[in-house]
Amino acid sequence: MADKETSRVEAFSDGVFAIAITLLILEIRVPHLQSEAGNGALAGALRALWPSFLAFVGSFGAILTMWINHHEFFKLLHRVDRPFMYANGFLLLLVTFVPFPTAVVAAYLDRPGAQAAMAFYCGTYVLISAAYNLLWYAGARDRRLIRDGVPDRALRRIRNAYLAGSPIYLLATAAAFWSPLVAFALCTGLWVLWARLDYSWRPAREGS
Amino acid sequence: MADKETSRVEAFSDGVFAIAITLLILEIRVPHLQSEAGNGALAGALRALWPSFLAFVGSFGAILTMWINHHEFFKLLHRVDRPFMYANGFLLLLVTFVPFPTAVVAAYLDRPGAQAAMAFYCGTYVLISAAYNLLWYAGARDRRLIRDGVPDRALRRIRNAYLAGSPIYLLATAAAFWSPLVAFALCTGLWVLWARLDYSWRPAREGS
Amino acid sequence: MADKETSRVEAFSDGVFAIAITLLILEIRVPHLQSEAGNGALAGALRALWPSFLAFVGSFGAILTMWINHHEFFKLLHRVDRPFMYANGFLLLLVTFVPFPTAVVAAYLDRPGAQAAMAFYCGTYVLISAAYNLLWYAGARDRRLIRDGVPDRALRRIRNAYLAGSPIYLLATAAAFWSPLVAFALCTGLWVLWARLDYSWRPAREGS
Amino acid sequence: MADKETSRVEAFSDGVFAIAITLLILEIRVPHLQSEAGNGALAGALRALWPSFLAFVGSFGAILTMWINHHEFFKLLHRVDRPFMYANGFLLLLVTFVPFPTAVVAAYLDRPGAQAAMAFYCGTYVLISAAYNLLWYAGARDRRLIRDGVPDRALRRIRNAYLAGSPIYLLATAAAFWSPLVAFALCTGLWVLWARLDYSWRPAREGS
Repeated sequence: MADKETSRVEAFSDGVFAIAITLLILEIRVPHLQSEAGNGALAGALRALWPSFLAFVGSFGAILTMWINHHEFFKLLHRVDRPFMYANGFLLLLVTFVPFPTAVVAAYLDRPGAQAAMAFYCGTYVLISAAYNLLWYAGARDRRLIRDGVPDRALRRIRNAYLAGSPIYLLATAAAFWSPLVAFALCTGLWVLWARLDYSWRPAREGS
Repeated sequence: MADKETSRVEAFSDGVFAIAITLLILEIRVPHLQSEAGNGALAGALRALWPSFLAFVGSFGAILTMWINHHEFFKLLHRVDRPFMYANGFLLLLVTFVPFPTAVVAAYLDRPGAQAAMAFYCGTYVLISAAYNLLWYAGARDRRLIRDGVPDRALRRIRNAYLAGSPIYLLATAAAFWSPLVAFALCTGLWVLWARLDYSWRPAREGS
Repeated sequence: MADKETSRVEAFSDGVFAIAITLLILEIRVPHLQSEAGNGALAGALRALWPSFLAFVGSFGAILTMWINHHEFFKLLHRVDRPFMYANGFLLLLVTFVPFPTAVVAAYLDRPGAQAAMAFYCGTYVLISAAYNLLWYAGARDRRLIRDGVPDRALRRIRNAYLAGSPIYLLATAAAFWSPLVAFALCTGLWVLWARLDYSWRPAREGS
Repeated sequence: MADKETSRVEAFSDGVFAIAITLLILEIRVPHLQSEAGNGALAGALRALWPSFLAFVGSFGAILTMWINHHEFFKLLHRVDRPFMYANGFLLLLVTFVPFPTAVVAAYLDRPGAQAAMAFYCGTYVLISAAYNLLWYAGARDRRLIRDGVPDRALRRIRNAYLAGSPIYLLATAAAFWSPLVAFALCTGLWVLWARLDYSWRPAREGS
């Protein structure tokens, strides 16, 4: 399976990312008020949806950053094979799953159960981080599917960033029992790391 | 990141626009009537959904026009970079959000709370207008990502139209407290402006 | 706007068709039974969903056939322009709308209100038929956007089929008040006409 | 209709697969607890959703495997025609339908009605298996749409795998009345067969 095949897997993955990111909005529910409630009551009810807005923005940013990283990774590959496609499928399973823990956080962040809800949310990212490492293993172990010319140095830099993700998400999951908002900040703050991760490389020359 | 990269960002954005525009229909709910209600009751209940139909048509037109403008803008670019991708991500976040204020307007337009609902709806477009200006800044400031040959005159014309949007949406938000339907007309009437906005240009020649 | 532009409009339209056709399933609701109900009760409740299954299959076939016709039409064009894009947008608005009348029919086909529900469903296709005629007018009037070489004879054959659709859907709408199932059969039976509509042509030669 | 046409049908099908696989998540509902319930109650409620998680993972894997097989099949074709497009449309109808039996299983797997729910689920795959055989018939009978060079041997191997599917899904449907979980394992375990199905071929040479 050569370049055309890589494009197809990329297009299907893009579709799943785009749909999952857009379905997030379905989790924000229109407030139901009694028929005599007026502007003040509706404004208050909309403000009371802050956990939904926060969870929406957080998960939107997370999926957007995952999408960007997914593509940058694919640009290092010259082909895909079946094991890689199943590793990619596992990652897409988890991307598709994200709207559910997002909805749980939106429903429970401002009431009892917030700790369990946030641990469930951060735990999803522990699995996602594992899925990215599995994808890396399926694609870059022994440079299996990697393009010629990508220097080992660039591969090590990216692999180390991927490996660093898992313990931080585990830490965030533990922190959820202490402070859900700190855990959320830790979970979504990792975007800054992923958004800045450098995939660029120059073809290796003499002595790279 | 060159032309191929631009296509990818465009394809992902197109997906989000297409999904958001189609999810709008989920906000129109089938009326629930008592089991003995007949044709007249159902016809009446469907007519009573006019705020849902109006909000659906308004938001459909808004997203469609935004999509057309998004593409016309991309045709001025020769490449994209990370800051531009995050500005684009912020715009997509707001496009994805549109079905929610649409549902709020659908639920409250014909009852107390209509003013607050419409101000929330128009306020979303204030943010969207800001996002388009941010995208412009990320792409066209100092002609950063602009193709050679696009004359400055054309860029100024488009930038001025973008800048003109924000105060009008702010005005619509304020007008919502006076008349929700006038505010809605103002908000969606701006399509006419955006739908007619001219992105065309000829390569600059001597003395442009 | 040349061939590449046509592809983009086609891709966006394809996305909307694909999403609308898939959202149809969301209108079929899982039956809620009391906790002691067993296999027989669930089997009965699933059988009682026949109006949902019927409406799902009917609307799926309708959207699939519309999609095929949409593409066949686009193959006659050599470019698109703004008026055509807005005519296409109006058609997409109605395609996006289809899941709602489908849900109304699913909810009311086996109870009082069936006539009004089916008239609403068939009425949607009256509008869709009008939208296809508008699209034809925007694209084929005076051969505005038509490729060279498509013979007038082929254009007349297609236009006549489009024109024939509207009165049949109007008839189906009227028939809904007499028999909803006959109206449904008429509405969805028109697929046979559209599915067989011949868009093929050979380049016109001497004396075509 | 030549290669470009094949790409379009493939792209539309990919869209439907991607949307159907992502909509599965909407069937998992956020648990509603009383306002004084705490972390333990929420954790318990999330654990009690195991039938939803199981059904989600099972159907995700099924659709992903169907998508991979769909593409591998398309790579054997050099063109598509109308009968093939309608056979493909019938398959897509069933792919789109999958989220509904998935939701039925999620709602009934741990309560009375589980047998009927699982028989309904497995029965959907009986139809899907029939649809794949129909697609094969529409594309490969007398090598109608098959590329030159694909050896008959490879076609026979794939056809036999397709034919083997239907009786196994029928068996799973019957087994549902005895043990729903065994039936589910049988239904989703068939992935292993499909995921390993070999579509590869070398151009036939002398005497293949």
